[in-house]
Formats: sequence, C-alpha cells, structure tokens
Amino acid sequence: MTFTDSQIELAHGSGGKATRRLIEGLIAPSLGVDTLMDAASLSLGGAELAFTADSFVVHPLRFAGGSIGDLAINGTVNDLAVSGAKPIALTCCAILEAGLPTETLRLVLDDVRKAAELAGVSIVGGDTKVVEHGKADGLYLSTAGIGLRDPRLNLDPAHVKAGDVVLLSGPIADHGITILLTRGELDMEADDLQSDSRSVYPYTAALTDAAHAGLRWMRDPTRGGLASALNELARDAGVMVQLREADIPVRPEVRGACEVLGLDPLHVANEGQFVAIVAPELAEAGLAAIRALAGGEEACLIGVIKDGPPVLTCLTPYGSERVVDMLVGDPLPRIC
Amino acid sequence: MTFTDSQIELAHGSGGKATRRLIEGLIAPSLGVDTLMDAASLSLGGAELAFTADSFVVHPLRFAGGSIGDLAINGTVNDLAVSGAKPIALTCCAILEAGLPTETLRLVLDDVRKAAELAGVSIVGGDTKVVEHGKADGLYLSTAGIGLRDPRLNLDPAHVKAGDVVLLSGPIADHGITILLTRGELDMEADDLQSDSRSVYPYTAALTDAAHAGLRWMRDPTRGGLASALNELARDAGVMVQLREADIPVRPEVRGACEVLGLDPLHVANEGQFVAIVAPELAEAGLAAIRALAGGEEACLIGVIKDGPPVLTCLTPYGSERVVDMLVGDPLPRIC
Repeated sequence: MTFTDSQIELAHGSGGKATRRLIEGLIAPSLGVDTLMDAASLSLGGAELAFTADSFVVHPLRFAGGSIGDLAINGTVNDLAVSGAKPIALTCCAILEAGLPTETLRLVLDDVRKAAELAGVSIVGGDTKVVEHGKADGLYLSTAGIGLRDPRLNLDPAHVKAGDVVLLSGPIADHGITILLTRGELDMEADDLQSDSRSVYPYTAALTDAAHAGLRWMRDPTRGGLASALNELARDAGVMVQLREADIPVRPEVRGACEVLGLDPLHVANEGQFVAIVAPELAEAGLAAIRALAGGEEACLIGVIKDGPPVLTCLTPYGSERVVDMLVGDPLPRIC
Repeated sequence: MTFTDSQIELAHGSGGKATRRLIEGLIAPSLGVDTLMDAASLSLGGAELAFTADSFVVHPLRFAGGSIGDLAINGTVNDLAVSGAKPIALTCCAILEAGLPTETLRLVLDDVRKAAELAGVSIVGGDTKVVEHGKADGLYLSTAGIGLRDPRLNLDPAHVKAGDVVLLSGPIADHGITILLTRGELDMEADDLQSDSRSVYPYTAALTDAAHAGLRWMRDPTRGGLASALNELARDAGVMVQLREADIPVRPEVRGACEVLGLDPLHVANEGQFVAIVAPELAEAGLAAIRALAGGEEACLIGVIKDGPPVLTCLTPYGSERVVDMLVGDPLPRIC
C-alpha cells in the first residue's frame, strides 16, 4: 500500500480506510516499523509489559458524560486493557493555546484526576507546552501508558478461527453521537444520551478470569467504530466476521440520530466498550462474568467467525446479509 | 504556590518561572500528584523502569541541525538518560493539521526514524489525529519513552552537597539561538550554527561507568536553559550553585547573537547537552570519560556546590558574583 495523497485531510484521522492508508502507506514504512499497534508488548528487565500512547483532539472539550480529560485517561487505559494488560501508570502531556481560560484547564485536569482514580492508575509524569492563540483549539492532550501483561493471555488475530464467537460489552455509538449532538450543528437533542467514556479494564479482567483459555483477541472500537475494528480483524486474521444486526445493542435515541444523519451505528465511535473473540465453549462463562459487573449487564453475543473471504458481514433483520466496509471518509471529525 | 492567572499565556510554556507556577500551582495539585518529574521511576514486574513523555511544538518544523522529528526522539531519550536509565522503547503520536503537505510529514518521519536509530531505541507504537486547517501549526508530536534504570545509580537532589562540582557536556544555547535565527525575524545569520539536537545517552552512560559512586544528579537543560535547571536544583537540594562564567563554553556566534538580542546564554534552550553534579574526587575521571567520546571533547567543569541560600550565582570575569534567576517571561516561545 502506498500513500499518494499530496496533503493531509480530515479523513486521514477518521480511524477508517484513510487512516489505515496513511499509517500503512506512509507512517509505518517511514519509521521502518511493520505496523503501529494499539499497544506494544515489551519484555524488559524480567517484566512483561504493554506500552501504548494516544493523542486527543476532541471538539468540544466538554460534552455530556465526559471531557477531553477523562477521554485521554480512558482511551489509553482501554488500549492497555484490550491488549490483555492491567493498566498501571500513565503520563499526560498538554498542548495549550494561549488565551485558554484557566478555569477550563482546571476542569479538564479534574476530569483527568477523577478518571485516573476510577481506573486505578497513577499519573506519573507529563509535560506542558503553550502555542500562540489560533495555533491550537483550546487544548490537546497526549497520554501514554504502561501495563502489566496477563501471563495467561496470548492475544493474536492469528489465533482467531471459524466457530469462535464475537462478544460485545454493551451498546454502541453513544460517544460519537453524543459529540455530534453536543456540537449543536444539528437541530436535534437527546437529553438522556451521554458518552460511554469509561475504563473497560474491570470487564476485560473479568472476561480473562472466566475465559482466558479461549480468549483470542480484544479491541476497543473507538474511531471508525465496531465496523472498522472488525474489518481489521477479518483482514489480519484471514477470516470472515458475521454479525447478527438484531443482536447488536443500540440505544433507541442513538439509532434515531443515526437514521436521521444517514450514519451506520457500526461506524460510530465508542469510548467505553470492547469487542472480544472467544472460543464458543467459553462464551457463556465469559458473558456471565462481564454481566455480573455493574455496567456490564448489556454484554452480549453478536456474531460468529466463519471461514470465507476476509470481510465483515451483517445479517439483517430481513434475512439478507450485507458486507459492512470500514469507515470511508470522516463524517464525524475529532470525536476523540 | 497558587496559580491565580486567569488565562494561559505563552510564558507558561517557557520552562522558567511561569511554567513552574503553572505546574506547581495548578497542574500538580489538580492531578493530585506531588510534582511532575521529567522521568518517573517505576518498579514493575521485577523491572526497574524509567517512564517519561513530552510534547513538541517547535516552530519552524525544520531548522539547521534538525527538525521537530529528531527533537521529539532526542528530547524523550535525554529525559530517560539524565534520569539514569538506558532508553529502550518510544511511542510517537502526531497531531496533524489538515492541509499539511505529505512531503513535509514524510521528511519529519524520516528524521524520527534516523534519530531513533542513532539513539538505539525502538519506536513501538503511536497514534495519528487530524484537526482542521487553522487548528494546529503543521504538526505537533508527542513522544513517550521507557528506559531501564541503572542499578548503580540513585540520583536525587537530596544527595547533592557542598563541595560537589558541576560538569557540563559541551557548549550551551546552540539550539535556542538556531531556532531564533531560522525564523528569520532578525536581520542576522550564522551559517555555521546549528541545533545541538542529539542523544546524550552515550555521554551519561560513560559518566556513569566512570563516576557512578559519586554521581548525584543529572539534567538536560532544555527550555529555560542551564539557569532554570540549576535554579531548580538549588531549590530542590537546598544548596547554592556557583558557576564560573569564564568556564562555561559558548560558541562565539551564539555569544554574539545573545548580546545583540539581550539574552543570557544561561537562559537559552539546549537539546543535546546535560549537566551533572559529581563528587569532587570523581570529577576528573568523569570528565575524561565524556571527553573520550566523539562530541564530548568540550565537556568541562563549570562550577561548585556551596552551603548557602538556595540560589544560582555566577562569578563574572570581572571578579564579581551575580545571582542568576530562572527564566522570567518567554523571549523564545516554541523552541521545542
């Protein structure tokens, strides 16, 4: 894959096809690395570590259910969690725009602290830079995190095989739709709707305890949504992923907003859910372990892995089967 | 210390007094941490690790002797090195402005790769976000790094005591002055001048091998310059730091630019030098070890630690002694 675009566009940040082209066609080869994983595995000084980093540019800075502050913590915590690690320590760097009200910064930092406390991680370092007014959008955050890998797990798309099942931790698309409605560009409101921003570690840990022997792969479907995450899995594992649309939980107000906007909920970002591929004989035990936790009640089985072309398909309520591509373009820029 | 400013200003990113006020008066207490160190020490899974992160917003993106790409690698590598660790693995996150020419990004990524190769570190992960045109300044980078701490070292300002000496790895202020001249806002050129951006790890490792038993503290004097780093040491260690101005190496063209601009070279940023406090009996051995390496020939002894008020002073060539404060304000914004 070669990246031939002459300049960077918003779509390159979507988490979908254009992002994949940018990373695989330019960034990874320029850096001389195979691919840029969500979290890297390191064996260092006798410790089995996971190491990950993310930047956050969400607009607006605050929204129902969260802010850029807790998003920055939960995003990095969740990358560690779905890589099979216990999140331990995070760094947090800020790029501030001159003119940013101190009160705005204070509120975001409060959210950073609270999210770290809730996730059980320590913030151990950071950095602050300031750029001129007009050279940023309030503030951007970058977090990096170290976790301890669970020795019982060996997650790898190559282990995914026909017959495995697809588990989902809860309703999708809450975050992306909340951001869109918060921006107020649409004549639409949903008072009850809020971002799902949270740490998924309690749920990945429970699933691991219950089903580690058959746990093949996990991912938090953020930018690009569930469809982009499972398309990547299909490609990386060389399998077909078949979902049953009727079994995928979507809140009614989210579904309504998606219909009006012409968005597929499968393409909309989540910040507090994860998807896991599990051997069928451990699916019930794994689901029960997630459902036993507060906030995990809506976990469900949404599909199966099949031999076939490396695509994602969806069985519709009408009995047909449609292919669901990765996100193309970026209908929802800057949702994280 | 309380942060009472109503909004963020460029000076808060200077690395000097205003930065210290922002961090100690707002960021650290809001996050519920004591202080945000350059690199944190973690004991994890049996490994003794250092963990650090930085953001980079240098303007312009490219300059004589480097770019934001190698700065992002060397900055994080050097934070690990001066914390007494061997740099191992880095993550690199980019915030890109829509409209950024792909060629600009490609050149920066090339610099990232080359700097990582030179420093002997692996880039193991990262992330890419895109913001609208006008919401960034080309691109910003954030790097985080993990290193393995050298078990022979126990660096701590509390170990610094009267009689110790101050070692410096080479000439100061090259980076900050290069950036300023590259911006072209001044009717001044210096063809031979370039940023000192480089990994200092070979030199900190050589010093450690030669003088670990008496090595008390190290720091890379970036934003805020040597004066800010040594003022922080004086305060944290409760000692007086006395430099001998005639012994501090400054290239003639850098000294000339500083005189024209009214800048003290002690306040100007470096990106490839470090300062160390060493027991006097090991100073010669330590200096010899650094000087034996290519690029370390100009290492020198520039001062001593004394009992006295926790300030930095400088003995002038005229026999007087002046107090040198931390950087106040920000005459050189966005130099890293």
